[in-house]
Amino acid sequence: MKISLAQIKFRIGNFEYNIAKMIDAVEQAKVNHCDIICFPEMAVCGFPAMDYLLLDAFIDESIKTIEKLCQHAHDIAIVVGAPSRDIHNNTILYNSVYFLANGTIQSVFHKLILSNQDINDESRYFTAGNIWGIIEYQHKMIMLAIGDNAFFTDQNSLLTEDAFHKITGNTNIDLVIHIAASPFTYLRASERLKTAKAITDISKASYYYVNHCNSQGDIIMDGGSFIMNDKGIVIDEFPYFTEVQKHYSSDLVANATSQVTNKKDKIHLIHAALVHGIQDYFNNIGQKKAILGLSGGIDSAVTAVLAIEALGKENIRVLMMPSEFSTQHSIDDAVKLAENLGIHYDIISIEDIYNTYLNNLNPIFGDLPFNVTEENIQARIRAILNMAVSNKFGHILLNTSNKSEAAMGYGTLYGDLCGGLSVLGDVYKTEVYELARYINKNREIIPEHSITKAPSAELRVGQKDSDSLPEYNILDPILYQYLELGKSAKEIIEAGNDELLVKRIFRSINFNEFKRRQTAPILRVSTKSFGHGRRIPVTGNFS
Amino acid sequence: MKISLAQIKFRIGNFEYNIAKMIDAVEQAKVNHCDIICFPEMAVCGFPAMDYLLLDAFIDESIKTIEKLCQHAHDIAIVVGAPSRDIHNNTILYNSVYFLANGTIQSVFHKLILSNQDINDESRYFTAGNIWGIIEYQHKMIMLAIGDNAFFTDQNSLLTEDAFHKITGNTNIDLVIHIAASPFTYLRASERLKTAKAITDISKASYYYVNHCNSQGDIIMDGGSFIMNDKGIVIDEFPYFTEVQKHYSSDLVANATSQVTNKKDKIHLIHAALVHGIQDYFNNIGQKKAILGLSGGIDSAVTAVLAIEALGKENIRVLMMPSEFSTQHSIDDAVKLAENLGIHYDIISIEDIYNTYLNNLNPIFGDLPFNVTEENIQARIRAILNMAVSNKFGHILLNTSNKSEAAMGYGTLYGDLCGGLSVLGDVYKTEVYELARYINKNREIIPEHSITKAPSAELRVGQKDSDSLPEYNILDPILYQYLELGKSAKEIIEAGNDELLVKRIFRSINFNEFKRRQTAPILRVSTKSFGHGRRIPVTGNFS
Repeated sequence: MKISLAQIKFRIGNFEYNIAKMIDAVEQAKVNHCDIICFPEMAVCGFPAMDYLLLDAFIDESIKTIEKLCQHAHDIAIVVGAPSRDIHNNTILYNSVYFLANGTIQSVFHKLILSNQDINDESRYFTAGNIWGIIEYQHKMIMLAIGDNAFFTDQNSLLTEDAFHKITGNTNIDLVIHIAASPFTYLRASERLKTAKAITDISKASYYYVNHCNSQGDIIMDGGSFIMNDKGIVIDEFPYFTEVQKHYSSDLVANATSQVTNKKDKIHLIHAALVHGIQDYFNNIGQKKAILGLSGGIDSAVTAVLAIEALGKENIRVLMMPSEFSTQHSIDDAVKLAENLGIHYDIISIEDIYNTYLNNLNPIFGDLPFNVTEENIQARIRAILNMAVSNKFGHILLNTSNKSEAAMGYGTLYGDLCGGLSVLGDVYKTEVYELARYINKNREIIPEHSITKAPSAELRVGQKDSDSLPEYNILDPILYQYLELGKSAKEIIEAGNDELLVKRIFRSINFNEFKRRQTAPILRVSTKSFGHGRRIPVTGNFS
Repeated sequence: MKISLAQIKFRIGNFEYNIAKMIDAVEQAKVNHCDIICFPEMAVCGFPAMDYLLLDAFIDESIKTIEKLCQHAHDIAIVVGAPSRDIHNNTILYNSVYFLANGTIQSVFHKLILSNQDINDESRYFTAGNIWGIIEYQHKMIMLAIGDNAFFTDQNSLLTEDAFHKITGNTNIDLVIHIAASPFTYLRASERLKTAKAITDISKASYYYVNHCNSQGDIIMDGGSFIMNDKGIVIDEFPYFTEVQKHYSSDLVANATSQVTNKKDKIHLIHAALVHGIQDYFNNIGQKKAILGLSGGIDSAVTAVLAIEALGKENIRVLMMPSEFSTQHSIDDAVKLAENLGIHYDIISIEDIYNTYLNNLNPIFGDLPFNVTEENIQARIRAILNMAVSNKFGHILLNTSNKSEAAMGYGTLYGDLCGGLSVLGDVYKTEVYELARYINKNREIIPEHSITKAPSAELRVGQKDSDSLPEYNILDPILYQYLELGKSAKEIIEAGNDELLVKRIFRSINFNEFKRRQTAPILRVSTKSFGHGRRIPVTGNFS
């Protein structure tokens, strides 16, 4: 038996586009004499379709697309994910795997364990199925599984060997086809392989896993489809973030002995995820060009480099917008970076505009002292200028704030928090430094001075981040323990952190929820990103 | 038996505050010789607690608070909603009703049908229970029910008489205590009464319903607690949006014959909901003062009036920010309104600032013609000025955009879409007119000219909303059918609407998701508001 896996960039709600891609892939598989071709979970409608799934018209289109796809299921079987309606009650929807062959739908199985964690809301849309997908095809017993939770119980523990054999009725399974819509985190790939290994040990079946690779807004999809043989050897792992279709003979898979290792370190993965997250975002919305403000600091420098890798330097332009509080070295660092990168840059001093605001506000402000108001005005003038160039020339503004700042509310709403997409909003400041070092690993792209100098927003004379925030090497581990691990202030203090500091950090995170509610979608790389996967009431006061 | 219902404004995560309020209410009930006091669903921790429910520390605090409350459950029983942990597996959480008496927890029942619709994500946090809450207390059989779905099947149909009697084992139920966390929509109160009537007809029990009344950000809670006797007569319905505690003798309830009618029309309800939504938002975040821009148009006029009703005129200040494109009548209308309302206003012309931007952008823009870029600059200058006064004097900026604009993307991101709270974002433009008429019902508060003139953003010479948008009386019903009723473009066209127009509207709604993703929490009054209850991928393209 020959099996084709199609890791394709599907578009949400663009059924014509998706079926055209699928038909191409089916034709490729036929040319290569494949018996089965596998597409990911929810391939037909794109992932995550979210509340489009509540629209009858959307489900109708999806079902029509499956019918069209059936016409191509001759001389090959197609395994594909899509929503399906209950045959007795059409208000009930399932997350299903379709098995198409001989020009018709041979069987439809429904996802058993729905995911309602983090960014997933499957119970909002779907009812859980209760029958395992086991079919016989060309004398092989095939198990069809859907989603990262497929082999977990609803108590979140992996199926035991007994449970597995009970499910199969002790029938021998030859191969598991696992279709997924599994968002990237820098830990996810190894988790998937661990689950596959455990199930392979139990089932003694070879394991084919196919995932989405089109990032959608904040949700990065890495693909990372893979094949593991019945001995638990990873025969192949697809390139991340990229469209790939490959074909495998089940005999060759069974007999393969060399393990592929695609293991990448965290910063390498985050770097690749962000570049492809930007790229897919722009492709999906039909845009090409980006703009950002370069301050001479490290966040905008790293964002610019990632944007260039994603979109090409000809599609990036930057603004430098110094004020009376800007240091010469910041302007020099920004210019040096732009020149290193070979991108178009403009310099607009904001002094003139800033003073005009102050003059016009003077009748209201009188002699009140300079405070955060005037700092915010500067940040907001820069946002207006960025957006003006964005609007005039059709460049999408990229947001350059990092996760540490987002947590602490260290940023100006409608100022530096503006942008259509937040590139670094799920990357702690200490990780931004690691990214900068990674970018500079072969040569100095980001000026060394941008990396080594003390970070500053330069909104008043001599300002440093450390005036308002703890040092990042102290702050970031505390943020990580709360945000990613869900630890309490008490636990973090008991682990040896300063009580006042921890409490202050918790209060800041809680208090600044209103800012995060209004910022751009954040490219998600960790297990807990601000945004859709973290839902905190703006009026709550628990910290 | 005497029963007390406590419709109280609980705070999310503020356990000390909540227990103090509960103890006061318990003492009141004792003084009034009550046998039972009832608090709403999730009263202990506040509603909606959202992802705080994923924090162990939060659940620990909630459990401790229940323990403290037990100490007050002497000579009275307490019915109260809170999360509970499974006794065998403490990672499993339920949405529970506690029955406290004789100083201890007598029983805990778990919500049976979880809600995952609209703003609710209960499967994200909770496991469903499987035992109905029926207890005997003081020789009465009491059914304890949780949440608006309590008497529905998981297929969303109301329990049949047979099903009900099967649940009770044909035991006679004397009273139903229904604790809820049921968000306001202008249709909700009548739905609740309808369900209660159906269950009363089946059960022949009297029915006590208690709900939250503290709005939290976008989520307005109306209270509307009520008592229905065993004949289906509504004995009392609590004032909406207000803290109220009342005590009822079950004998008097049983024998009452006069039906209370609290029926209010839609605009009256929306008006009250918005006023209390603003008020609670400010109370919950510990703020008092608001600012907004007055344009002379109807949206800002209605928002100003609602804000004054919520916060008092001494806490509202407004800015008028005319440009070269502003008409004299707009300025006159705005000044007239501010004077009618007796609020502090300042006038800052934006011409000077606008021209400074254009001068500074000239080296980049050259001779490119005036377009939406320059319109957006004006809107954004106004946002900066509003935010500057907000920052300097501690006023929260109120957003004044309406639902029709939000749907069509007719507004400037980081401009008129700014603000900490969107007051009218769930109110269609045609409803804003109705609100204005309602406000003016006794005397002209909003200048008549603001209501009758053609709406305009005045961002270029002679601009009218109707240059960019369909007439609102045509647009709004189409928006309603899509957004609230989930109808497809095809259905709306087949009902007699212009095909090109409907398709254009659908495309605009879809395309402008990115703007809505970055706007403030919207006070929710309809069955489908933009925000947390409507989740559309920013990169989707289904329309």
